[in-house]
Amino acid sequence: MIKAGIVGVTGYAGIELFRLLNQHSKAEVTHCFSRNKSISDFNDVYPFVESGSVELKSFDPLIDYPIDVLFLATPHAQSHSWMKDLVNRSYKIIDLSADFRISESLFNDFYGCKHEYPEGIDMFVRGFSEIYREQLKNTSYCANPGCFSTAVVLGSFPLSKTELGCVNMLVDAKSGVSGKGKKVDESSLYCEVNESTMSYGTFGHRHTPEMELELNCPVLFSPHLVPMNRGIMASIYCDNPSKITQDDLSNIYSSFYKDEPFVRVVGPDRPIKTHYVTGSNTCLIKPMVLKNKIVIFSVLDNVIKGASGQAIQNLNIMFGLEETLGLSQLPIFP
Amino acid sequence: MIKAGIVGVTGYAGIELFRLLNQHSKAEVTHCFSRNKSISDFNDVYPFVESGSVELKSFDPLIDYPIDVLFLATPHAQSHSWMKDLVNRSYKIIDLSADFRISESLFNDFYGCKHEYPEGIDMFVRGFSEIYREQLKNTSYCANPGCFSTAVVLGSFPLSKTELGCVNMLVDAKSGVSGKGKKVDESSLYCEVNESTMSYGTFGHRHTPEMELELNCPVLFSPHLVPMNRGIMASIYCDNPSKITQDDLSNIYSSFYKDEPFVRVVGPDRPIKTHYVTGSNTCLIKPMVLKNKIVIFSVLDNVIKGASGQAIQNLNIMFGLEETLGLSQLPIFP
Amino acid sequence: MIKAGIVGVTGYAGIELFRLLNQHSKAEVTHCFSRNKSISDFNDVYPFVESGSVELKSFDPLIDYPIDVLFLATPHAQSHSWMKDLVNRSYKIIDLSADFRISESLFNDFYGCKHEYPEGIDMFVRGFSEIYREQLKNTSYCANPGCFSTAVVLGSFPLSKTELGCVNMLVDAKSGVSGKGKKVDESSLYCEVNESTMSYGTFGHRHTPEMELELNCPVLFSPHLVPMNRGIMASIYCDNPSKITQDDLSNIYSSFYKDEPFVRVVGPDRPIKTHYVTGSNTCLIKPMVLKNKIVIFSVLDNVIKGASGQAIQNLNIMFGLEETLGLSQLPIFP
Amino acid sequence: MIKAGIVGVTGYAGIELFRLLNQHSKAEVTHCFSRNKSISDFNDVYPFVESGSVELKSFDPLIDYPIDVLFLATPHAQSHSWMKDLVNRSYKIIDLSADFRISESLFNDFYGCKHEYPEGIDMFVRGFSEIYREQLKNTSYCANPGCFSTAVVLGSFPLSKTELGCVNMLVDAKSGVSGKGKKVDESSLYCEVNESTMSYGTFGHRHTPEMELELNCPVLFSPHLVPMNRGIMASIYCDNPSKITQDDLSNIYSSFYKDEPFVRVVGPDRPIKTHYVTGSNTCLIKPMVLKNKIVIFSVLDNVIKGASGQAIQNLNIMFGLEETLGLSQLPIFP
Repeated sequence: MIKAGIVGVTGYAGIELFRLLNQHSKAEVTHCFSRNKSISDFNDVYPFVESGSVELKSFDPLIDYPIDVLFLATPHAQSHSWMKDLVNRSYKIIDLSADFRISESLFNDFYGCKHEYPEGIDMFVRGFSEIYREQLKNTSYCANPGCFSTAVVLGSFPLSKTELGCVNMLVDAKSGVSGKGKKVDESSLYCEVNESTMSYGTFGHRHTPEMELELNCPVLFSPHLVPMNRGIMASIYCDNPSKITQDDLSNIYSSFYKDEPFVRVVGPDRPIKTHYVTGSNTCLIKPMVLKNKIVIFSVLDNVIKGASGQAIQNLNIMFGLEETLGLSQLPIFP
Repeated sequence: MIKAGIVGVTGYAGIELFRLLNQHSKAEVTHCFSRNKSISDFNDVYPFVESGSVELKSFDPLIDYPIDVLFLATPHAQSHSWMKDLVNRSYKIIDLSADFRISESLFNDFYGCKHEYPEGIDMFVRGFSEIYREQLKNTSYCANPGCFSTAVVLGSFPLSKTELGCVNMLVDAKSGVSGKGKKVDESSLYCEVNESTMSYGTFGHRHTPEMELELNCPVLFSPHLVPMNRGIMASIYCDNPSKITQDDLSNIYSSFYKDEPFVRVVGPDRPIKTHYVTGSNTCLIKPMVLKNKIVIFSVLDNVIKGASGQAIQNLNIMFGLEETLGLSQLPIFP
Repeated sequence: MIKAGIVGVTGYAGIELFRLLNQHSKAEVTHCFSRNKSISDFNDVYPFVESGSVELKSFDPLIDYPIDVLFLATPHAQSHSWMKDLVNRSYKIIDLSADFRISESLFNDFYGCKHEYPEGIDMFVRGFSEIYREQLKNTSYCANPGCFSTAVVLGSFPLSKTELGCVNMLVDAKSGVSGKGKKVDESSLYCEVNESTMSYGTFGHRHTPEMELELNCPVLFSPHLVPMNRGIMASIYCDNPSKITQDDLSNIYSSFYKDEPFVRVVGPDRPIKTHYVTGSNTCLIKPMVLKNKIVIFSVLDNVIKGASGQAIQNLNIMFGLEETLGLSQLPIFP
Repeated sequence: MIKAGIVGVTGYAGIELFRLLNQHSKAEVTHCFSRNKSISDFNDVYPFVESGSVELKSFDPLIDYPIDVLFLATPHAQSHSWMKDLVNRSYKIIDLSADFRISESLFNDFYGCKHEYPEGIDMFVRGFSEIYREQLKNTSYCANPGCFSTAVVLGSFPLSKTELGCVNMLVDAKSGVSGKGKKVDESSLYCEVNESTMSYGTFGHRHTPEMELELNCPVLFSPHLVPMNRGIMASIYCDNPSKITQDDLSNIYSSFYKDEPFVRVVGPDRPIKTHYVTGSNTCLIKPMVLKNKIVIFSVLDNVIKGASGQAIQNLNIMFGLEETLGLSQLPIFP
């Protein structure tokens, strides 16, 4: 069994790693870390874990824990300060935070602090499983992508790789509230979010540079918060100067993803909603030609394919396991 | 007191007319009509109305009811079959349905039936209060706009009237579920809608021709359903070939709406969400210049400014009353 | 016009006072106070108030503000430290917090601090409008009841006044999340509350002594949190040793509340849900004889009849105004 | 592999059987039946199933399908008309509907039709897995319990088996909306349910006789509908004439369930909410002594432990498999 450690196990992504690995036949969680000093028993946070059955420790980057893989489900701008010590270990690292996803200068700009281990950034393979599968097989360091980035990149990558490219690309995204994490602030209170749709971060969301890096084109990214726990819908709009037809567009997507276990492409006449993927590691994509535009809807569960599920998919790839191990659950409905 | 009749009073727009007129100092509801044969007592539908206090009748277009104004809060494709009889009455008519908003041919296309009184379409003034105020003062017939149309038209009209116009206009809209009305079908069940965001009607929503008619430009309209009772957020995206600046854009909007009691323009650094207007007749608009685009967020309460509130605003205009009568409630929060 | 000051105007009860008084024909808000130092503009909290139109000050108990009535919408255990100074003013006081509702010793026990002005407790009339109307007419000091207390006391008071009394009384209550106020803690985050029903405070909720004081009998009070913004349903269960019949029970309630503008009694065959009263100052009560029990369902909007609406009702009574002023809105639906 | 057929696979319980069996290592779904004539492709209902991959047939009770077990996830009052034919087959039957749970006369009373195969009722073992495990091992016919019944019976059974019994038992239950199933009627529309808590069925819910039969005592059952998809909280209140202590009560429950994989008992100081079990087959129980009462909170996921999960648990028992097969998922959070 592969022994896994999770740093930040009491956050939403951390507990999801714990939950999903519980179903994995070849990996097990042996070390749980939380920096929250007020939590002494994991059962206090997640009562479905037997009290006392999981020991919570404070993570010390100087200790060489006896594990095979370390998941960093920490807030952004944390792991970069630990990494110079961690890269010397014998275990592999899957970092769910943003610290090693983008260039040093973009990181410094978007996260408001100085990256302490910029030489590590090139060591990390960006963890879009479907795109960097080959590189992931041969690395010990994975920078797991953000939830918005995954929805947008999977939704537009096949188009971006054609001659057409993503022209005048605009993304209007809608996210459930778990995407904000478990940070306690007024704007995440139930009564502030419930029964309301909000536009936010329009001037420069932190996920924008990740998307632009991957797609190699500018992206106007306009995120919205909607009152639900899980789910992202990315509505992607591009110009269609070459007047590609629906059939050709559909073929591009179907071909690109035809062997992918976790991406499904549907036709232009099919309905699409986030509930179709909640609880699963699937990204569902609906590409359409609409009037003078190309429109692509891409939905996923932000906590699974947008975070912890993709992290486990990357673990499977990095360890040479079958890629679907631990990830075969169908969506939960309703 | 102005005597009002409401046809379709047991629907969501109908009851909202009833509720709002209850606070109106110069109008009262004297006649309530419902075509739902299973409802004999209004109290069965809305228990906050004393049982027996409101008589529900079946509406008969051949009867000349002693009223001053008739609100038609009926499903689409109903009032066109009655109208040739109704226009001969002494009362004014405010039709909340789509039947007299668009041309005969568009109506026939989008609503799948033959308009029975096409000569009436030109008799109706389209009820965007802020745009057709002068015409509304002099008409007896108002075609009250749809909820999406109101959000989009108010959000883009000032821009459309400049030399710049709305270039390559795209609208990504998010609506609460009451916008679907009270029609009983599986797709509106709680468990089908809750915890999910859905894209729908992308190939041609019925509100599209209303917007295009008003703005005199093509609109790519992409609506989404989000899990909340009330509220619409229309996110409007246009190209900015003339490179208008934020200041100039803000000035265009502030000037255009400076005397409007029910439209408020906010600066690009202000948050915007539907909850800011829920329960009020206000449309809140945030115009931005963003990278190479003009982006305008427009939010309103679909049942009030998007339907019954605007209908009462139009009543006030049509009867020469103060425009804010009965509509001065602040938004309800939370 | 009666000039009103609101302390704590940026909380949920405070803003609701502001909203409701905006519709009041004989009172106006002239002074707004908030202790939140980070808020400089009311518009930052409630954007439907024009930026700069309302001045937010820090409340100073030593200043004699030129007002006629002061609403204290402060957290519990705050006003008791101010009150010895405030009772010397010429204005009346309506305290929405718990500080003057119960005896000194109960206060000290339940709120974990020493009451600094116990001699004031007897000066305050408990603000159950329907029960203490006569006393409220002749006082300057009103201790406005808690939301749960109002629902439970109005629901069981008529029975408690009969010879039968409330035997073996048990209350299972369900509350929306706004009842927790705007305090920022993890347990009120959207994702912690949404899609879940929680039992809490079973060992001794702070509202229990208020109920027991009013009803003069022990109450087993078992509150639950349900995922909605507003609304309380109190399900009240008593033994029925005297075997009172449904007709007699219905008559007791109908008679007791027959002239009340804000209490409505419905028959045992009518549906009852919180949505029937959301947005209104009405308490809806359904008394039933069920097998060997008396069961009473009592619903209200916790922010209105359970807090700010009842406070305004009390203002109307204390100033000799018509009791319904500013409170005539019908429930909002949906 | 055990071959399973599901009748009613397009309903909420049916799809959950399909989803859970997909994770089962020793059973597979080979036959899917739906009586809904408008559905030709399972993908139309549940798009996460590949279009065309599952054949939907109309169930014919006269055909002897080559299966090992038949799940009947049909509406109530359907299977009784088929059963005389089905009991002659070689497969086992697990009926999730109410038809074989209670006596003929109670069935006729509560379901308003005449039972067509009353002699079958005694052939069926009631499927409370923890209570009838031994009988289930030796039967081919299981009447799977209702969701409310499971929460209430598991929550009160240990007490009912002591000398104390459940005295003056009252159950105030709160259910998510999926408990109503997928029946299309106005009362289940999103806007009718959202933001509201409703009392219903107080005069005699259909699950009451199931509980009374199991517990052998009268139960006053008072259900409420709360706005969430999944989850039941049963708050159970009994008198405590023998003045049992908290320690003794806790011991009774801990002992009773100490070897159960799907029932967990927590102490009186632990929080309890439905989210702690959503997505799992666990029933979480918190027994308390409170003033003069015994109070027991019991929560479960109504679609899993309250329906399809318990059905699979019963399948495991009836076929001599490990009881947890296919049911080891931890709760999903948030």
